[in-house]
Amino acid sequence: MPATMRVSVLRAAGDLAVEERPVPAAGPGQVLVRVGSVGVCGSDVHYHRHGRIGEFVVTAPLVLGHEAGGRVVAVGAGVDPARVGQRVALEPGVPCRRCAQCRAGRYNLCPDVRFFATPPVDGAFCEYLAHDADYAFAVPDSLSDDAAGLIEPLSVGVWACRKAAVGAGSRLLVAGAGPIGLVTAQVARALGAADVVVSDIDAGRRGAALRFGATQVLDPAVDDAAGLGADAFVDCSGAPSAVVAGIRAVRPAGHVVLVGMGADEATLPVSHLQNREITLTGTFRYADTYPAAISLAARGVVDLDGLVTGRFDLDGVEEALTAGARPGSIKSVVLPGGLPA
Amino acid sequence: MPATMRVSVLRAAGDLAVEERPVPAAGPGQVLVRVGSVGVCGSDVHYHRHGRIGEFVVTAPLVLGHEAGGRVVAVGAGVDPARVGQRVALEPGVPCRRCAQCRAGRYNLCPDVRFFATPPVDGAFCEYLAHDADYAFAVPDSLSDDAAGLIEPLSVGVWACRKAAVGAGSRLLVAGAGPIGLVTAQVARALGAADVVVSDIDAGRRGAALRFGATQVLDPAVDDAAGLGADAFVDCSGAPSAVVAGIRAVRPAGHVVLVGMGADEATLPVSHLQNREITLTGTFRYADTYPAAISLAARGVVDLDGLVTGRFDLDGVEEALTAGARPGSIKSVVLPGGLPA
Amino acid sequence: MPATMRVSVLRAAGDLAVEERPVPAAGPGQVLVRVGSVGVCGSDVHYHRHGRIGEFVVTAPLVLGHEAGGRVVAVGAGVDPARVGQRVALEPGVPCRRCAQCRAGRYNLCPDVRFFATPPVDGAFCEYLAHDADYAFAVPDSLSDDAAGLIEPLSVGVWACRKAAVGAGSRLLVAGAGPIGLVTAQVARALGAADVVVSDIDAGRRGAALRFGATQVLDPAVDDAAGLGADAFVDCSGAPSAVVAGIRAVRPAGHVVLVGMGADEATLPVSHLQNREITLTGTFRYADTYPAAISLAARGVVDLDGLVTGRFDLDGVEEALTAGARPGSIKSVVLPGGLPA
Amino acid sequence: MPATMRVSVLRAAGDLAVEERPVPAAGPGQVLVRVGSVGVCGSDVHYHRHGRIGEFVVTAPLVLGHEAGGRVVAVGAGVDPARVGQRVALEPGVPCRRCAQCRAGRYNLCPDVRFFATPPVDGAFCEYLAHDADYAFAVPDSLSDDAAGLIEPLSVGVWACRKAAVGAGSRLLVAGAGPIGLVTAQVARALGAADVVVSDIDAGRRGAALRFGATQVLDPAVDDAAGLGADAFVDCSGAPSAVVAGIRAVRPAGHVVLVGMGADEATLPVSHLQNREITLTGTFRYADTYPAAISLAARGVVDLDGLVTGRFDLDGVEEALTAGARPGSIKSVVLPGGLPA
Repeated sequence: MPATMRVSVLRAAGDLAVEERPVPAAGPGQVLVRVGSVGVCGSDVHYHRHGRIGEFVVTAPLVLGHEAGGRVVAVGAGVDPARVGQRVALEPGVPCRRCAQCRAGRYNLCPDVRFFATPPVDGAFCEYLAHDADYAFAVPDSLSDDAAGLIEPLSVGVWACRKAAVGAGSRLLVAGAGPIGLVTAQVARALGAADVVVSDIDAGRRGAALRFGATQVLDPAVDDAAGLGADAFVDCSGAPSAVVAGIRAVRPAGHVVLVGMGADEATLPVSHLQNREITLTGTFRYADTYPAAISLAARGVVDLDGLVTGRFDLDGVEEALTAGARPGSIKSVVLPGGLPA
Repeated sequence: MPATMRVSVLRAAGDLAVEERPVPAAGPGQVLVRVGSVGVCGSDVHYHRHGRIGEFVVTAPLVLGHEAGGRVVAVGAGVDPARVGQRVALEPGVPCRRCAQCRAGRYNLCPDVRFFATPPVDGAFCEYLAHDADYAFAVPDSLSDDAAGLIEPLSVGVWACRKAAVGAGSRLLVAGAGPIGLVTAQVARALGAADVVVSDIDAGRRGAALRFGATQVLDPAVDDAAGLGADAFVDCSGAPSAVVAGIRAVRPAGHVVLVGMGADEATLPVSHLQNREITLTGTFRYADTYPAAISLAARGVVDLDGLVTGRFDLDGVEEALTAGARPGSIKSVVLPGGLPA
Repeated sequence: MPATMRVSVLRAAGDLAVEERPVPAAGPGQVLVRVGSVGVCGSDVHYHRHGRIGEFVVTAPLVLGHEAGGRVVAVGAGVDPARVGQRVALEPGVPCRRCAQCRAGRYNLCPDVRFFATPPVDGAFCEYLAHDADYAFAVPDSLSDDAAGLIEPLSVGVWACRKAAVGAGSRLLVAGAGPIGLVTAQVARALGAADVVVSDIDAGRRGAALRFGATQVLDPAVDDAAGLGADAFVDCSGAPSAVVAGIRAVRPAGHVVLVGMGADEATLPVSHLQNREITLTGTFRYADTYPAAISLAARGVVDLDGLVTGRFDLDGVEEALTAGARPGSIKSVVLPGGLPA
Repeated sequence: MPATMRVSVLRAAGDLAVEERPVPAAGPGQVLVRVGSVGVCGSDVHYHRHGRIGEFVVTAPLVLGHEAGGRVVAVGAGVDPARVGQRVALEPGVPCRRCAQCRAGRYNLCPDVRFFATPPVDGAFCEYLAHDADYAFAVPDSLSDDAAGLIEPLSVGVWACRKAAVGAGSRLLVAGAGPIGLVTAQVARALGAADVVVSDIDAGRRGAALRFGATQVLDPAVDDAAGLGADAFVDCSGAPSAVVAGIRAVRPAGHVVLVGMGADEATLPVSHLQNREITLTGTFRYADTYPAAISLAARGVVDLDGLVTGRFDLDGVEEALTAGARPGSIKSVVLPGGLPA
């Protein structure tokens, strides 16, 4: 094991640098993981550009990246040494394990959760990570390193579909054909949904939706979803107009799940919700989704590798963070160990 | 059985008259009920004052009243004749029994439901009603006629508490101490809630809340509910400010249930909902609540008689409809058979 | 429309005859369907052989067959005439629509349900059927007539998977690789199950299981399922030994669903269930499954046509009822309109 | 704080002795509690008499008692010092916090849970206990020390009622009027149950049932519960005949919950379960019940103090363990600090 490793650090908004830092040790109950691939999320882009997300402010150097896969290279006290060599997907948030939310199995709502790349907790754009062993999930060799990292956004889609009660025969509307919309559409199909309608203002992204799970696409500029009678609507756009249109597309007793972050407040058609007893909620990360997400990707019913449109090394993190603006870009990944020859 | 009966008819907004009409016959599967007591609901008041509620417009003479109890005096084909003489509470909406919502047990969302006092369906301010036998529920003699009628608003409270997942140890916030807020508070206590906090801007109504289920009252003008950490919030006020305050009072993974009808649209703190995975829904009437509501009232754990602050005969319907404005008024009832001597 | 039709009638155990009967008329709310294909179920075989199933005794001539698809040829009062020509799958049980179970959406448990081929209600081995329109579900042309009929057993599998809470990543054990086991396995995969282990004592049926959904097969004579840690176990065998082995294969908080009918009583490892809080239930037909089942078959994620191993006309019903004993037989169907040329 | 304390130790079956042991220290995340009162459970009696319960064998000295309340006298690292002086009820099982069951909120099923008075983990018949702070729940002063301890069996009843889906209007059958049956009956009423029918072969216990929640009692020797149409049945007797009778008393789609431990195997009417889609499960301890149970007891809607029929000091543990055989005995408690003067 080397003594030091290369780490991409966000020192302030727009200011990234690769630094040399000590390789961490696996503490009790932890594994040490050599990071193979880390997906770039919109939150990483936002921290890089603005130095904050809402009340989370980058006041000290921060390592970005929370969609990580890799290989166990050492274990701490109390962890089965046979895990050394195991390929893993890292669930990025480790909760306190003691509060009422943890006790109830809703650990994503733990107020003391430590989550990669959320100030002051460092993320995964680095060569090695020490992580609680029970939040490092074994993946089969049929999953690539990239796919292991992308289990994280896939988990967002799995969680959204659970909240939306997607099942056999469901008709689902998804707004927004970015990475989260595309995994949500794929998950819905893998759960037996009959119809997965994806709306996006961008023609290129509508095309991507048709390749990744959508059975139909809508252009909200010209198509009205109001008569869709969807069993559920999952918003992955954060756009208030999409949320309102989506609510109106849902049948009585249907579900609305807000995944995309938009404005703090939105004007919603509440009497429409009331008269139809539509249930609206949001997702905050996910809980207990990794095994299911790994299974879906390993079976090949969800395609993660196909979402990767750019691969970068640690020196290319800035490029990775800005690549999303390019036409056709879906998901960039960072390979801390360097690009293959 | 007399050939005709007295009926209070709303001919247009503000124009009530007592008419003589034929006594209806019990059709197949129906019972004929001599109406004992009918509660006055805010919707009756609204039709009387405005001649409409939203898209429901009084374009032909309409009989108001939908909170009815009485006694079976005849049965139609296919109904057990032993029901004659039975005291009953009438569930006012009879669904189509054939649509997807009916099939799924959500008959309150049936698009073809026929509901008392909703144009063009007549209501219960009359001496006799023919009603489907399976929507006429036997009540024990421990329930008064008034209480039999008030099983209807009690059902609204039962349904709200189900949607809010109220149970043992729950902390519930209720906004609005009108009749619905008061029955909701009482139901919550009967279901084992630990704390039932009721907020209302009116001191008299806060006092009533403390007599009918509240363990604590708040004046929204001076008290901030934001730190309450409630497991659930049930809005019975329809006031947008109360809804927003209530949402902020709910703990992560808690429930918000909108019962009171307010504006069609409302500006809601959606990021607050999302980050806490709070679930928001509304109620539209109720389904499968009458047996439970009758049981709670019959056991005496919910007090309905105590809510009655005015009793009127058919000639006094206009007075009954306006009595709610008087200080201390909670619930008026109409006795179609006349006031007791 | 002809005045009469051919009907296969079970006059007593082992005594089948084709009779000429009047074509029924579509009553109010009904459709008249020309029957295209009817699957043969084990219950048909049992009535034919024994003249009874438990307390249901063939005391008068009975038409067998309850897995029926066909085409609407006429409609009764109150039904949209545009349905004429529509291809449909017939849900064989029509409930009373009035009892507490119907009201709650559990219409399969309605004590007054009228179900095809259950004394004294006739079934579908005939040319025409009048059936309540809301229990005749439109199917797309991508579904064959055979598949339309086999939506019925598929519904059994959908219902079993719902009770078993099968979802993304589930590990499911199915005992019995007959038609119900095979559709259950397929549905589980279509709902995202990771592992579908099917056990059967017959090597040929284990082979079929691998073609229809199983990811792994077990021979209960040599393989022990006890360490499987399954999330759920669905018994489609009715064999007490399989039920006991299946219960021991389930992880804590898992589900056991008994679909196959066996002895009235069974000796079960109750302390095992208790200490693990395993939930055990059974299925009785299904409720609200047809739309989902049709969708799964129409998408092609469940293969019904591949299950058909024998096709017979009305004169061949006896042969159809006994074909199941042949090696390799899975499902026979009866074509009341005759075999294609 | 004294250096040593008195402890009642079970050295082998039937061999109890009071020993002097060091007072434990509160470890990180723990509180040190001076034990006020400890209820005697049937499992304590069983260990004392037989030296084992199933696979749990007393192979080394064991402290019995797991129904404990007391007062915090010191805190370990990371625990709010303000808790010193707080009166608490101790949830006796502390899970690993890391396994799949813990992650899912089902910590009672954690395979590595450490539970008081279960070999090799010591229990509460001693003066001081160090316990994880988040499993020590504050109780209000309206709860006696005895009641604080008896929150434990009350939790069993709360959990049983949750599994049985008891709510407003429920009709519940409980078999066995021992302490668990009595708290279950009381909880059911506190949750709004309409009817709580308790069956017991002992007339004295039937009398107790009528004082503690039952609305009706049955003598299984003469009364047949089969036609009861109960929404749920909770067995607190462990008697196979009671389980079978209870299953037959449940309506279609109802719930059966096995709490009492009886034989490992039982012969059950499975076709009865199947045809009615009755759900059967068991309880293993409880999860996330303490706050609800404390609330019910603190409100006075459940009476725990009334269940106490004998109080003993540490020298009287043997007497406490055998007192249950006396007529009229319901629950003995041990006061490690000595009986009040």
